[in-house]
Amino acid sequence: MTTGPRGVRTIELDEELLDDIRELIHEEARAILVNILADLHAADVADILESLEEDDRTYLVGLLSPQVASEVLPELSEGIRESTLPTLKTETIAQIVAELESDDAADLIAILPDTVATRVLRALSKEDAAKVRQLLRYPEDSAGGIMALEVLTVPKTDTVKTAISKVRRFAKQGYKMHNLYVVDADERLAGFLPVGDLVLLGPGRRMSTIMDTQVISVGAGMDQEEVANVMQKYDLVSVPVVSEQGTVIGRITVDDIVDVIKEEATEDIERMAGLTGSEEISTSVFETSRIRLPWLLVGFGGEMLSALVLSSFQASLEEIIAAAFFIPIIMAMGGNAGIQSSAIVVRGLATGEVRMAQTGKRLAKEVGIALLNGVILSMLIFFVSYVWFGDIRFGLTVALALLMVVLNASLVGASVPLLMDKIKVDPAIATGPFITTSNDALGLLIYFGIMSFMYHT
Amino acid sequence: MTTGPRGVRTIELDEELLDDIRELIHEEARAILVNILADLHAADVADILESLEEDDRTYLVGLLSPQVASEVLPELSEGIRESTLPTLKTETIAQIVAELESDDAADLIAILPDTVATRVLRALSKEDAAKVRQLLRYPEDSAGGIMALEVLTVPKTDTVKTAISKVRRFAKQGYKMHNLYVVDADERLAGFLPVGDLVLLGPGRRMSTIMDTQVISVGAGMDQEEVANVMQKYDLVSVPVVSEQGTVIGRITVDDIVDVIKEEATEDIERMAGLTGSEEISTSVFETSRIRLPWLLVGFGGEMLSALVLSSFQASLEEIIAAAFFIPIIMAMGGNAGIQSSAIVVRGLATGEVRMAQTGKRLAKEVGIALLNGVILSMLIFFVSYVWFGDIRFGLTVALALLMVVLNASLVGASVPLLMDKIKVDPAIATGPFITTSNDALGLLIYFGIMSFMYHT
Repeated sequence: MTTGPRGVRTIELDEELLDDIRELIHEEARAILVNILADLHAADVADILESLEEDDRTYLVGLLSPQVASEVLPELSEGIRESTLPTLKTETIAQIVAELESDDAADLIAILPDTVATRVLRALSKEDAAKVRQLLRYPEDSAGGIMALEVLTVPKTDTVKTAISKVRRFAKQGYKMHNLYVVDADERLAGFLPVGDLVLLGPGRRMSTIMDTQVISVGAGMDQEEVANVMQKYDLVSVPVVSEQGTVIGRITVDDIVDVIKEEATEDIERMAGLTGSEEISTSVFETSRIRLPWLLVGFGGEMLSALVLSSFQASLEEIIAAAFFIPIIMAMGGNAGIQSSAIVVRGLATGEVRMAQTGKRLAKEVGIALLNGVILSMLIFFVSYVWFGDIRFGLTVALALLMVVLNASLVGASVPLLMDKIKVDPAIATGPFITTSNDALGLLIYFGIMSFMYHT
Repeated sequence: MTTGPRGVRTIELDEELLDDIRELIHEEARAILVNILADLHAADVADILESLEEDDRTYLVGLLSPQVASEVLPELSEGIRESTLPTLKTETIAQIVAELESDDAADLIAILPDTVATRVLRALSKEDAAKVRQLLRYPEDSAGGIMALEVLTVPKTDTVKTAISKVRRFAKQGYKMHNLYVVDADERLAGFLPVGDLVLLGPGRRMSTIMDTQVISVGAGMDQEEVANVMQKYDLVSVPVVSEQGTVIGRITVDDIVDVIKEEATEDIERMAGLTGSEEISTSVFETSRIRLPWLLVGFGGEMLSALVLSSFQASLEEIIAAAFFIPIIMAMGGNAGIQSSAIVVRGLATGEVRMAQTGKRLAKEVGIALLNGVILSMLIFFVSYVWFGDIRFGLTVALALLMVVLNASLVGASVPLLMDKIKVDPAIATGPFITTSNDALGLLIYFGIMSFMYHT
């Protein structure tokens, strides 16, 4: 642990520091530990907790005051939070939840077992409990599911002076905010003003004359990935969530969105790799194997098709045993080219850079790339197989097959995610195992189809 | 184009809207276009520009006032910005740059051809030119490379009233800010205060008594990914960049960091898929094919090894031709299990959830998962091949091979990224094509090794 030269507190989480903390825990050196933790940023405390074994973690969490725990718990990864929270007493959890803003409160309560959640809700103030219940009604991945309800709106007719006094009252309740939202007589969102701007303006000016009317808002049902795209596109620090009637019901801040962006990227990678997104680092072996098995079984089924394709070309295989040697490269080149095409489309769709309007253009481009690289790879394999076997017909067969397989794989790789997006299925699911497996069977069909045509077997 | 029901301006960028705009461009309907663009958010104008063909884009950019252009240009993707900027006159570029904050100004100038850049710098005010020159000295991916120099510091001894008047002067220059940084007598960073908090506090209070001293800062040389991790970890909207002496030299805001996070996540996915990270949606066919070829060639080389493995077992293959039928499933199951193991480790390393300290535990876990799923898949393939060929020995051979291949692939998949991380190579690069390819050759070696052992061929 070091205190930076400029009063900046940083900690270096290495094994040495962790060992020191473990030792203090085993010595039950309460006072020293409380002192150490009090000096640290909540995010650093969370880091330490994540690195400890479960028993040590439980002990350390027990030392945190409800106020500190309320800052630390939202920083923990979901799996760790889920295993840690139930070790606390119901009253402690209620005290912690009472300290949180509504979005973090709802997140905590959502992971509690039903009976504990009910007891915690009962221990909260009526107002707090109502807020949490309202938030729990929205799907976890929607704007409603990640918004906080603590938002300050002022009427268009307010003066700067009035607005400032409202901001002060709001801040006294412990709430932070970046923007003030201005509403018209019907309570509908009409504009916004960064809170900091209030110090720049004369106290008598009215909101209607100083607010920015180009206010971007999102609906409560919008998917969190879309919210992230909107906030990124328009460089927003905070975005209001509005009801269908246009009234402001909550707000989402950029720090939540940063987490969403990381989550969604991880989800895309996992799905492309044949994981289902529900696997966490801390998930048990049995549960993990259960989560991973379905995609392996999809692959298994697909490769049985490949086996059938090969068995139907048994005559060709027996006649030209060297054809078998190139099965791996046919499969691999199809697989790699397919993954390249699909990855770029999947990420492009996720970031909004690939638009449905340009589907035709994108596919044409992938065909162009596949043709170029396919021809290069074909020439290479012709050369290799000619040198190896000294047979021009065989070399031409393998080369032609490889070109067709790369073309087919790129087209499938680029078009399946686009198709999935059109029918509103997450394109990332389509990619990876699914495309690779179908490309294997198709690729082998193409390979041995050309082989049996060239050799009239 | 629609104006939302609540005064919220949104645009739906579909082919129809684009066609309308294209038509107006071809009719050279200047006035109408200027009117349409004036109504839109800069990010939407950027979206339209990105969707148009180059000629139309150039025409439309020519219609933007320097002030609007200064908002639109930073929103364009780098490739498009690079091709658009040189179509403008030097004076226009200088006018645009003068409107920008220093970080965006430096970004624009960095992509200009040297001669144009020199002319633009000469056309700027001395102060602006000096700022840009200073920023261009930092590496593009460092904190210094993405920071803006417009930052307001106030001494600890300032009262709220004095600070407010400084904020007003700063804002009059057109600069926005989230936080006020407080410095001690040596000009060194001592604390910070959100600008909005100024309205909450009595005008006579001194900065030293109200500032938050737990201020996180970054050095100018810090890598942008690390800056992103710091800002995400500590939920910062803005972070000060400090010199080695501890003085504040700039600030980075979260909107820049959101872009970095997306970039880095996309880079991970691309690398795992065998793309090199420098491919953009707008990259040309030739350039893209050149970028994608290297990984295909790595795969090509690896699969030549697989071909060699198969040819060395030619005797087994000729004797038991059915062995060839299961080549695809052996390769695919190894590939899928390997990718699953590596993806979870790669992302875990990226998000910090997998720590080097837990390497042994992680590997043991992957072995456990592979054993469980491997046994299930083995039983399945034994059943299928027994029903198909009615040969117990053959069924046992294939089943045992599949189990060993899945085990091997999982171990390789999990350990290679950990190893890469240890030797400071991006683990994502190791994954995808590399692991898949090496698992193919290894898997076939295991498969035919067991086959020739069981059949004494």
